[in-house]
Amino acid sequence: MPVTMDKLVSLCKRRGFVFLSSEIYGGLGSSYDYGHYGVLLKNNVKNLWWRAMLQERDDIVALDSAIIQHPETWRASGHLAGFTDPLVDCRTCKLRFREDHLAQSACGRKPSKHPGETDDCDLTEARDFNLMFETTIGPVREEGSTVYLRPETAQGIFLNFKHYLQFSRKKPPFGIAQIGKSFRNEITTGNFIFRMREFEQMEMEFFVPPAEATRWYEHWLEQRMNWYTGLGIRPSRLRLRAHDPDELSHYSSATSDIEYEFPIGFSELEGIANRGDYDLKAHAAASGQKLEYVDGATGERYVPHVIEPAAGADRAVLAFMSDAYDEDEIEGEVRTVLRLHPLLAPVKVAVLPLVKKDGQPELAGEIYRALRERVQAEYDEGGAIGRRYRRQDEIGTPWAVTVDHQSLEDKTVTLRDRDSLAQERVAIATLGEEIERRLREPWRSPQA
Amino acid sequence: MPVTMDKLVSLCKRRGFVFLSSEIYGGLGSSYDYGHYGVLLKNNVKNLWWRAMLQERDDIVALDSAIIQHPETWRASGHLAGFTDPLVDCRTCKLRFREDHLAQSACGRKPSKHPGETDDCDLTEARDFNLMFETTIGPVREEGSTVYLRPETAQGIFLNFKHYLQFSRKKPPFGIAQIGKSFRNEITTGNFIFRMREFEQMEMEFFVPPAEATRWYEHWLEQRMNWYTGLGIRPSRLRLRAHDPDELSHYSSATSDIEYEFPIGFSELEGIANRGDYDLKAHAAASGQKLEYVDGATGERYVPHVIEPAAGADRAVLAFMSDAYDEDEIEGEVRTVLRLHPLLAPVKVAVLPLVKKDGQPELAGEIYRALRERVQAEYDEGGAIGRRYRRQDEIGTPWAVTVDHQSLEDKTVTLRDRDSLAQERVAIATLGEEIERRLREPWRSPQA
Repeated sequence: MPVTMDKLVSLCKRRGFVFLSSEIYGGLGSSYDYGHYGVLLKNNVKNLWWRAMLQERDDIVALDSAIIQHPETWRASGHLAGFTDPLVDCRTCKLRFREDHLAQSACGRKPSKHPGETDDCDLTEARDFNLMFETTIGPVREEGSTVYLRPETAQGIFLNFKHYLQFSRKKPPFGIAQIGKSFRNEITTGNFIFRMREFEQMEMEFFVPPAEATRWYEHWLEQRMNWYTGLGIRPSRLRLRAHDPDELSHYSSATSDIEYEFPIGFSELEGIANRGDYDLKAHAAASGQKLEYVDGATGERYVPHVIEPAAGADRAVLAFMSDAYDEDEIEGEVRTVLRLHPLLAPVKVAVLPLVKKDGQPELAGEIYRALRERVQAEYDEGGAIGRRYRRQDEIGTPWAVTVDHQSLEDKTVTLRDRDSLAQERVAIATLGEEIERRLREPWRSPQA
Repeated sequence: MPVTMDKLVSLCKRRGFVFLSSEIYGGLGSSYDYGHYGVLLKNNVKNLWWRAMLQERDDIVALDSAIIQHPETWRASGHLAGFTDPLVDCRTCKLRFREDHLAQSACGRKPSKHPGETDDCDLTEARDFNLMFETTIGPVREEGSTVYLRPETAQGIFLNFKHYLQFSRKKPPFGIAQIGKSFRNEITTGNFIFRMREFEQMEMEFFVPPAEATRWYEHWLEQRMNWYTGLGIRPSRLRLRAHDPDELSHYSSATSDIEYEFPIGFSELEGIANRGDYDLKAHAAASGQKLEYVDGATGERYVPHVIEPAAGADRAVLAFMSDAYDEDEIEGEVRTVLRLHPLLAPVKVAVLPLVKKDGQPELAGEIYRALRERVQAEYDEGGAIGRRYRRQDEIGTPWAVTVDHQSLEDKTVTLRDRDSLAQERVAIATLGEEIERRLREPWRSPQA
């Protein structure tokens, strides 16, 4: 059973992972801020994605393109014309609905019915509403030009394809990866950080010879599933769902969603699409530039096809937290524990003096200052030791170092494991290496 | 002599650090995209800033607040009323100028003169132009509410101050740090990535008891100068410039700029301001919430004063690259080399087979795959060895591993240093540890 959303939201607020944005002014729709542990966790997610894309393989390069791009981008990509939701109003209850979501919506007068099902409903014709945020660039509004906040990071990659061919010494098959914010003026936001108007994407466009597209599509389905399970997500809560032909975007010949069993049920965590040559051809036509690959040796010339694994950084955070959330009982008390993969954990090690006297805080302080040279660490001397363990368990800290009276005699400490609760005595001198060794070890969720 | 901007821009484009955004559509003002090495470098800059703020000390916590905040934020902060540039038009040449920059601008008809200095000029009265980008949130434009892209990340911190007091277990003196994009609809952009409409900030607000403000202001001046010099910036190109009283923002009782000698001359790299209690009081008044600290033990109650080190991530990248840029002569040829601190270098180590035969590429490939488990590495087998060294020098790779015929016999390789050009033979088995050991060593620029 996945954790309930309420429990997760409550933990996130209480421990400063994620909370409502602009709260002192009453909040702003489905807008959230990441707090201390949330930033550390999300930074780990993003750095591990970069690691998988850039460091552990040699066929992908990085990009960080601007959020506000030339407006022609969105005309060429089809977003200006087609990135819309059809909205209908009810003249009776004054509510507004997405026409394609009527069957999931509730009538304002009779909430047990859908809009349009009751006599009371008086729905307007649908109007198309573009989801792109619009703004004006330049010094004076009336003369400025209209620009858009990007609704996806992918187009910035296509715009730069030619540049990378010229300067990156790469040729197909190769990929361009990017992490960054995107913005969609959604009418239906909600479910905490699952769907926000402002969100962070981790997208990679992999350019391949057309004949190899299917093979690489399969490759990326497998790679991306492995990334999540390798970071501890339970395979039983992941599934791959191929889109039906009538569900496919106009540009895609095949798309599969990696779905995770969130507290709201199985929902999209990442989409992997075979976009064919749609995007490069669209921008070639609009810009008048040749966006194709020419093999210098053979003279072969083609427009590469594109395989796109597109992940949401916020959804990844939500999935990792949902998956890690657990409650167990220790000494008759319920313990909340985040069984995060150690590489994802915001804090790797906590250093705790057993008591706040007898030189223990001083020694623990020394150990803490040595460990923080290597990893994100915390020092905590406040309250009963059991309570301090719980605090760390709740934020997912995999190891706790406890300094006790024996530590002052023999220069050892206990090293406690969050999941097994095993406590080992370890020499202070080798503590840093021991933590780093454990961090490098393969890890498997005790819940898997 | 700092490198010229032209040389830097050319290297940045050629090697894919930074280049014009939306170039296939003719670009978009002063908008730039970061390419592969640029992303790696900037990620290192940001991660090292986080490290200095969060990992190496225990009095700062992190935040990542939304770009689009409640619009009341900007009314309370004073940005809606006061974050403006005064613009004047010339009715003759149709150019537009910042009234406060007339003395640095050129007349459209007689470029040797300033606007207003010639008989030809016919300047309008100044009009105030707000620098915030405006957009509309919500499903239908005419009913939506106007919101703004944040012009600074700092206000998101003040909005969350109370939340952090409640949940972070911190009390003054403590800081909240944030990295993220900000947007300013500047009329005067330019100088490459020095001033862009969309840019990334690294800001920290440090909340202190009022009586300690001056001491902490001095502390942060010193800390931030040390951060740059510790990462290799030449002290001779850094200076601290205290703002004159008439230069101070209305909220600040003291501000100093850390200025770096960019190719355009000494200019602001980071500002460190004593903001007093201006911001917390403004948001307390606007929100009706008490934004103050109450000491649970003594009952003491005060509005903390705020010391703010506000750095630009893009300017930091520009400073690190400018400072690292060097040209020297090797074997009669001019070499371009980026003498970046190894922790900043996009690639830590390149692995090169001396020749593309005799089993050398296979062994080099093995070594490369082992090293990339630890650090960002590159494999390159294309072209003469001297040319491959130059390629790595130009992107700042501190070390190159060369596999030669001896390597296949005795399992050693040469390890070449980018700056000293020294080549040492190192056992393949200890290579990974040797690189990591060198990365941990203190480093000093050979140019310092």
